[in-house]
Amino acid sequence: MSKKLTTRDEDYSKWYNELVLRADLAENSAVRGMMVIKPYGYSIWEKMQAELDRMFKETGHENAYFPLLIPKSFFSKEASHVEGFAKECAVVTHYRLKNADDGSGIVVDETAKLEEELIVRPTSETIIWDTYKRWVQSYRDLPLLINQWANVVRWEMRTRLFLRTTEFLWQEGHTAHATKEEALEEAEKMHEVYTRFAEDFMAIPIIKGRKSENERFAGALETFTIEALMQDGKALQAGTSHFLGQNFAKAFDVKFATKEGGLEYVWATSWGVTTRLIGALIMTHSDDQGLVLPPNLAPYQVVIVPIYKSEEQLDAISEKVNLIIADLRSKGIRVKYDDRTTYKPGWKFAEYELKGVPVRLAMGPRDLENGTIEIARRDTFEKTNVSQQGIVNTVSDLLEEIQNHLFSKALEFRDSHITEVNSFEEFKDVLDKKGGFISAHWDGTVATEKKIKELTKATLRCIPNDVKEELGTCILTGKPSEKRVLFAKAY
Amino acid sequence: MSKKLTTRDEDYSKWYNELVLRADLAENSAVRGMMVIKPYGYSIWEKMQAELDRMFKETGHENAYFPLLIPKSFFSKEASHVEGFAKECAVVTHYRLKNADDGSGIVVDETAKLEEELIVRPTSETIIWDTYKRWVQSYRDLPLLINQWANVVRWEMRTRLFLRTTEFLWQEGHTAHATKEEALEEAEKMHEVYTRFAEDFMAIPIIKGRKSENERFAGALETFTIEALMQDGKALQAGTSHFLGQNFAKAFDVKFATKEGGLEYVWATSWGVTTRLIGALIMTHSDDQGLVLPPNLAPYQVVIVPIYKSEEQLDAISEKVNLIIADLRSKGIRVKYDDRTTYKPGWKFAEYELKGVPVRLAMGPRDLENGTIEIARRDTFEKTNVSQQGIVNTVSDLLEEIQNHLFSKALEFRDSHITEVNSFEEFKDVLDKKGGFISAHWDGTVATEKKIKELTKATLRCIPNDVKEELGTCILTGKPSEKRVLFAKAY
Repeated sequence: MSKKLTTRDEDYSKWYNELVLRADLAENSAVRGMMVIKPYGYSIWEKMQAELDRMFKETGHENAYFPLLIPKSFFSKEASHVEGFAKECAVVTHYRLKNADDGSGIVVDETAKLEEELIVRPTSETIIWDTYKRWVQSYRDLPLLINQWANVVRWEMRTRLFLRTTEFLWQEGHTAHATKEEALEEAEKMHEVYTRFAEDFMAIPIIKGRKSENERFAGALETFTIEALMQDGKALQAGTSHFLGQNFAKAFDVKFATKEGGLEYVWATSWGVTTRLIGALIMTHSDDQGLVLPPNLAPYQVVIVPIYKSEEQLDAISEKVNLIIADLRSKGIRVKYDDRTTYKPGWKFAEYELKGVPVRLAMGPRDLENGTIEIARRDTFEKTNVSQQGIVNTVSDLLEEIQNHLFSKALEFRDSHITEVNSFEEFKDVLDKKGGFISAHWDGTVATEKKIKELTKATLRCIPNDVKEELGTCILTGKPSEKRVLFAKAY
Repeated sequence: MSKKLTTRDEDYSKWYNELVLRADLAENSAVRGMMVIKPYGYSIWEKMQAELDRMFKETGHENAYFPLLIPKSFFSKEASHVEGFAKECAVVTHYRLKNADDGSGIVVDETAKLEEELIVRPTSETIIWDTYKRWVQSYRDLPLLINQWANVVRWEMRTRLFLRTTEFLWQEGHTAHATKEEALEEAEKMHEVYTRFAEDFMAIPIIKGRKSENERFAGALETFTIEALMQDGKALQAGTSHFLGQNFAKAFDVKFATKEGGLEYVWATSWGVTTRLIGALIMTHSDDQGLVLPPNLAPYQVVIVPIYKSEEQLDAISEKVNLIIADLRSKGIRVKYDDRTTYKPGWKFAEYELKGVPVRLAMGPRDLENGTIEIARRDTFEKTNVSQQGIVNTVSDLLEEIQNHLFSKALEFRDSHITEVNSFEEFKDVLDKKGGFISAHWDGTVATEKKIKELTKATLRCIPNDVKEELGTCILTGKPSEKRVLFAKAY
C-alpha cells in the first residue's frame, strides 16, 4: 500500500494499468493477451451481469447456450461477416495430443487432424443462425428473443486489460422477427436498455447514436451505439445493438410461413456488451488514489474498520458494529467488516480507497462512548462524525448521493468536452489540445471518413440521435453537409 | 404433441434422447458432439447455478475467471494429470485465416502458426496453479477459496446430450491451503455441499463415498464422490471433490512463508459439477409422459391454463387468474399463464406434461361460477377441484409435497437396488438381471478392479462413507477383504 499510483497527468495509460493490478481487478496470464479476472474484478462483472440479465428478462428475453467451436465454412456464408470476423481468430486443427516418441513431453498427434478446422467463436451469429434454421418454420415460432452469456476469442495484436483482450466475456443477444419494423424496434429497445444500464448503474453519461456505414458491425444494416468519454478525452464504445436485416437469414436460409400463407426470410438483430465495460467504469470515475466505484455496482458499498488498542476494545466495538451491519443488510446494503488483526487501520483505509469502496465507516473507543461513528465518502474524501442513531438512513442517502454525484461529475466533464469546429485546422487543433468529442460537418462519404482517420487517428464515433441538423460544409472536402456528427480518438 | 414418446421399457436410451429433444432441453449442433442448450434446458441450469453459487458463497468462496486456452507445456508439469487430461482435447495451432488464393473461400493462414500450441481447457488446474504461484507468498495469502463458472472441452468419441458432450458447462472450485488438514476439510465440506444440493434441490438420493485409486481424478490423492442411481439401474457420478495434496503446488512451485518462518508447499483441492447433472435429473424422475421436474429447480413451478369458448369467458377467467398469479408470485412461486389463443387446452396440457411442470392449474367457466379451480400434479397425475380460497397455501403445500415425494420415490428405488452378493457368479447375475449398485467384497487392488470391469463392464463406483466393515473374501480373487464396496455399470 505504501507506493503511490502513477498519476493520470503523469501517464494516463500507466495509471490505468497500475490501478487494475493494484486494486486486484485483473492481471495478465501466461497466455499472451488473455487475462485472469481476479475475484474483486469478477464480482463487479457479476453485479453487471445480474442487472443486465434482469433487464433482458424484463424485456422478454431468455438465455440459451451455443457451441464454442464453429466450422470454418460457416464464416464464408455471410459475405461482409467473413471480412470482419473470420480473420484474426483461434483455429482448432487437431483433437488429440500424445507422448513424444523421444520422451520429451507431449506433442500434437498428427493423425488426429480435423477434416474441417473449427474456429473458437469470435461472435456467434453463424452458429446461431444455423440453429435458428431448425427452430423457425412458421410465424408462430417468432419472435425468438435469445441471449447468451459466453466467452469469445479474437486474436488481438495489442492488448490491454479489460479494454482489449484476446479472450473476453460478454453477452450476445440474437433475435429473429417476422417483420423489418419489429426487428428495428428490438434493436432500438436494446439500445435503450444499454443506455439505462450505463447511466443508471455505471453512472456513465453516454451519447446515443448510429454508426456510419464504415463503422458498422460486419453484416449489419444499422448499428446503434452508446459512446462514452474517458477522462483522457478519448471515446469508448460501450455497447452496440445491430439491425441485421435479412442478411443472416439469407446466408443460412431461414424462412418462415407467414400468416397469409407466404414464405419469407426472417429479420434479425444482435446486440452485446463485454467485460470492456469494466475498463470504461474505471476510466470514467477513478482518480489518482485508485478505483472509484458507483454504489450501484460496488461489490461492497460500505466497509467498516474498527480502531482499537486492546482486544477488549475490539470486542466492544465489534458488538456495536455487528448490530449496525445487521441493520444495513436488512436494507439490502452490501457491507464488509474488516476486523483483521493482521493489518493496521491506516493500511486498511488506503486499501479500500484503492479498491473504490464508496463509503467507509470507522469506529473507535471514543465513538463508542459518544454514540458516534466516522463516515467517509470515497468520491470526495469528505469525512464527518455522525450519530449512530439513524446510521442506516445516513448511509443509504449517502450512497444515493454518491451515485448521482459520480454521474453529474462525469456528465459535466463530457459536456465540456464536446466541441463544435468548422474547419479541418480547428478539428486537428481541438483533437490535439483538448480531445473529447468533436462535432463537425461531414460529407457523408466513407472516403472522407477514412481520410480523416488516416490524417488524425480520429474516428467517426456516431451520428447522434439528437443530431444537430443545419446546413454546413464538410471540414475536409468542403462539400455540402446537412448535419453535424461526432468524431473522437477512441479506445 | 400427438406422437407419444418411446417408453422406458421399450428403449431407455431412445426414450432419453427423445425426451431431451421434445421437452426442448437441448439438441445436437452442427459441430460433432457439441450441443445447443435450448432456453428451457438452460433455465434449469440457471436455477442450478443460482443455488450452487449461493451455497459456494455461503461457505466463503469467490468467483474468478481464468483463460480458456492453456499452453501445451503446462499439461506436462503434473505427471499423472498429463495422462488423464492432455490427450483427447481441442488443439489451437493457428491464429489467422485468410481468403484462399483461388477464391474458393477461407483457409488457414500457414504463416500464423503459434510457436506453442494452445489447448482448449479440459479442466483448469494447470493455468490456475500457474496463477496461484503469483498470488501466494505468505500464510496471510491463504486460504484461496476460488470457483470458476466456465465451459470446457474434452474430445469425446461417443457423445450423448447432457451426459457426455465434447463441450460442457461446469463450475470448478480450486482452493489453496496452508495445511493438509484444512485442505482435506475443504474437500469434505464441498462433498457435503454437493450432497445437500443433490438431495434438497434435485431430489436425487446419493451415496457419499470415496473413489478407489484407479477411479480417482488425475492428480488427486483422494476423490470424494456422490453417486446416484438412474431408473435403468445404471449409476451416475453426480459430483466430485478432490484432495490434491501438494501435487500441483510442487508442479507449479507454489510455496508460502509459514507463520513460523519456514517455507512450505501449498495444499490443494478442486471440485466440480457439470451440465450432466441435467441428464441425471431427467433420468431420475422422468416418466413415459415426459420430463418430471422437482419444484425446487423447475423454471416455472405452476402453469395456469384457461378453458373457454368465447373471448368474454377468457377475459373473465384472466381477470381472476391474474389475481391468483399476483398472490402466488408474492410468495415467491414461479408461475406461467398460458393464455395463447393459438393452441387448445388439450395441447397445452400435453405440452406441460412433457415439460415436467410440477403443478397445473386449469380454470373454466364453471370454476368461475363455483369459486373453484382444478389442480393437477405432474408426478402422480392426480387431479382435484379445490377452492380458489387459500389456493396459494394449497399450491405451496403441494409443491413441497411433490419435492418430498420425488425424493422418497427415488430413494425407495435406489435402496431396493443395492444388492449384496458373495460370489462372482451372483455378481454377474445381479448385474445382468437387476442392475443397480452391487455391494461386494473386493481385495483392494487396482488389478482386480480392472479385471472386474473388463469382465462385466461394472466399475467400482465408491467406497461408501457408511461402509459395511466385515470380514469377507474378494468375489473375484477370494483374497481377504475388510469391507464391502459398491460396483455398478455407470454413465
